[in-house]
Amino acid sequence: MRLLKERIIKDGIVKDGDVLKVDSFLNHQIDVNLYREIGKEFYRIYAGCGVNKIVTIEASGIGIAVAAAMYFDVPVVFAKKSKTRNIAGDVYKSVVHSFTHGKDFDVVISKDFLNSEDKILIIDDFLANGSALEGLCDILKQSGAEVIGAGIVIEKGYQAGGKMLREQGMRVESLAIIDKMGPDVGIIFRE
Amino acid sequence: MRLLKERIIKDGIVKDGDVLKVDSFLNHQIDVNLYREIGKEFYRIYAGCGVNKIVTIEASGIGIAVAAAMYFDVPVVFAKKSKTRNIAGDVYKSVVHSFTHGKDFDVVISKDFLNSEDKILIIDDFLANGSALEGLCDILKQSGAEVIGAGIVIEKGYQAGGKMLREQGMRVESLAIIDKMGPDVGIIFRE
Repeated sequence: MRLLKERIIKDGIVKDGDVLKVDSFLNHQIDVNLYREIGKEFYRIYAGCGVNKIVTIEASGIGIAVAAAMYFDVPVVFAKKSKTRNIAGDVYKSVVHSFTHGKDFDVVISKDFLNSEDKILIIDDFLANGSALEGLCDILKQSGAEVIGAGIVIEKGYQAGGKMLREQGMRVESLAIIDKMGPDVGIIFRE
Repeated sequence: MRLLKERIIKDGIVKDGDVLKVDSFLNHQIDVNLYREIGKEFYRIYAGCGVNKIVTIEASGIGIAVAAAMYFDVPVVFAKKSKTRNIAGDVYKSVVHSFTHGKDFDVVISKDFLNSEDKILIIDDFLANGSALEGLCDILKQSGAEVIGAGIVIEKGYQAGGKMLREQGMRVESLAIIDKMGPDVGIIFRE
């Protein structure tokens, strides 16, 4: 997605330690017009695939999922990162390792909001090692829902997640795939 | 907002311990058409007030803020609940007490995304004791930004937050104010 790649080049900041800061437009401050275009693009890719629900994970996936859901006209369900007392009753649960925070955390979705009739599009802002997507897929498998595919805004193509998930047969569509980045080389996208 | 109140009556579940579960449409599963109407209503209320940025707090505020921002055509900035290594540099910081989780947590916004020229609409899903709103106001005060007002989806009118903030001179507009609720009485809205 050209608009996105141009924006990453313009406003993304590459830092040591494999960090790409896109927090001026994607995941701290949000450019709502960019979100709209991202939502529209996911719809272009997955329209006609029978998606009836979008699943994402808090926090930065939520806004993107809502923007996309406005085109699909389907509900969003977001996985929560820990079990609070407001999620009573039965939940589907999995574990995600966060490299950003350096720890494991539980992700849960209430059993009320997933079932075996569902055809799910998973949306998230980043794909790197794939731990978040694997956790969501685990939850969806427990529910019997069908995963139509994933829509990712930025994939770090040099990390293992995208390759691993595609080899497992999952459809993963990323709007920008970075093949290489660093304070020295800048950002190089996959063609 | 009639549509919202009808939905709360239809799908909200009142539980012991002052819990109103609205997770089938508002803060776990999201009805994107309802979000659109909520966003439109906030715009109706605050249009013409010069809002140039919407501020909210992760996680469940984000989707609502994005829906509203599409009408205002302004960016969203969401406060993060802890300092991760991806928020480098200077942040404005405050403390919020969560009654749901029974603990205090830090909320931060990068100094890059707030300044003294900003005219802010704060958006959140719930207002009860007002701790989250107070934390956000504290952060906004540090930045020198002007708070135009707050847009709340559901206010628990029998708790102290709304009264306290309005007495401090803040404009607080809630789309549904609950005056009383309980497993015995159901949900009674303020007229």
